[in-house]
Amino acid sequence: MKELKLNQLNKDQFQPFGDIIDKNQEIPFEINNGNCLRYNNLAKLSFTDGQAGISLFESKTITFPYSFNFMEKHPLGSQAFIPVFGCRFIVIVAKEINGKPSEPLAFITNHGQGINYHKNIWHGVLAPVEEKATFAIIDWIGKGNNLETYTFDDEFQINL
Amino acid sequence: MKELKLNQLNKDQFQPFGDIIDKNQEIPFEINNGNCLRYNNLAKLSFTDGQAGISLFESKTITFPYSFNFMEKHPLGSQAFIPVFGCRFIVIVAKEINGKPSEPLAFITNHGQGINYHKNIWHGVLAPVEEKATFAIIDWIGKGNNLETYTFDDEFQINL
Repeated sequence: MKELKLNQLNKDQFQPFGDIIDKNQEIPFEINNGNCLRYNNLAKLSFTDGQAGISLFESKTITFPYSFNFMEKHPLGSQAFIPVFGCRFIVIVAKEINGKPSEPLAFITNHGQGINYHKNIWHGVLAPVEEKATFAIIDWIGKGNNLETYTFDDEFQINL
Repeated sequence: MKELKLNQLNKDQFQPFGDIIDKNQEIPFEINNGNCLRYNNLAKLSFTDGQAGISLFESKTITFPYSFNFMEKHPLGSQAFIPVFGCRFIVIVAKEINGKPSEPLAFITNHGQGINYHKNIWHGVLAPVEEKATFAIIDWIGKGNNLETYTFDDEFQINL
């Protein structure tokens, strides 16, 4: 069992793995006669042999200490998670070395932040830390095998 | 000035115009070892000469009575609105007759409901009725003219 540091989600550390979907990533422009700001095109979406779809995930809430030894990746498409009720969640990613995830990095989001994992990036499963854990998912819809998994021999643990 | 009835968003009336994105539209399946339910592929996404992108809209909140005479449509792509903090909003749509929107229909969403306007459907601008009016938008990203607008001679009014 190895403890991982829990980092506040930040662009410097997260950008090799994906995108942060919040209002700090782009300068917005006005639409709707000045009544609305548009923060445009915040995520790098990419889909092979399929197309983007919108789904909802309703997840159980995790508790701390949070232990895991399982990661997954999607070779055919990016995958975005956006909270519908603002719920914060844990984001776990890892670089691939020799076809396997290396030691993971762990982040916690702010209320209302979303993220987009780039195609083929190792990540943990959805791990919300609050109730009302409903998320809109923008990911690959198609036919084929879009899931690879890896289970570490030992568990990692995250404390709040 | 003509008053429009404000309907609770419902599939029977809304499905000619788009999709409701909530947990009542599909039977979910379990993922993540039973810790999460996936309500799969809830919206008909369609993009011409471009691709799906994720943006954020931050809108001013409307007040009632709400008056409008402006509608728009997007000939090159569908457009989904998903609240990030659960915010309810007014949804206005109209059938096209002779190239113009006919008398609009007005709906109000429940907390956490999202919607997807199908490609080329006349609709009103984003009209949230609560604070924290941040929405994730999944719509067309590309080069070209994806906006047509129409202004009615007289205003329509909606009361809560």
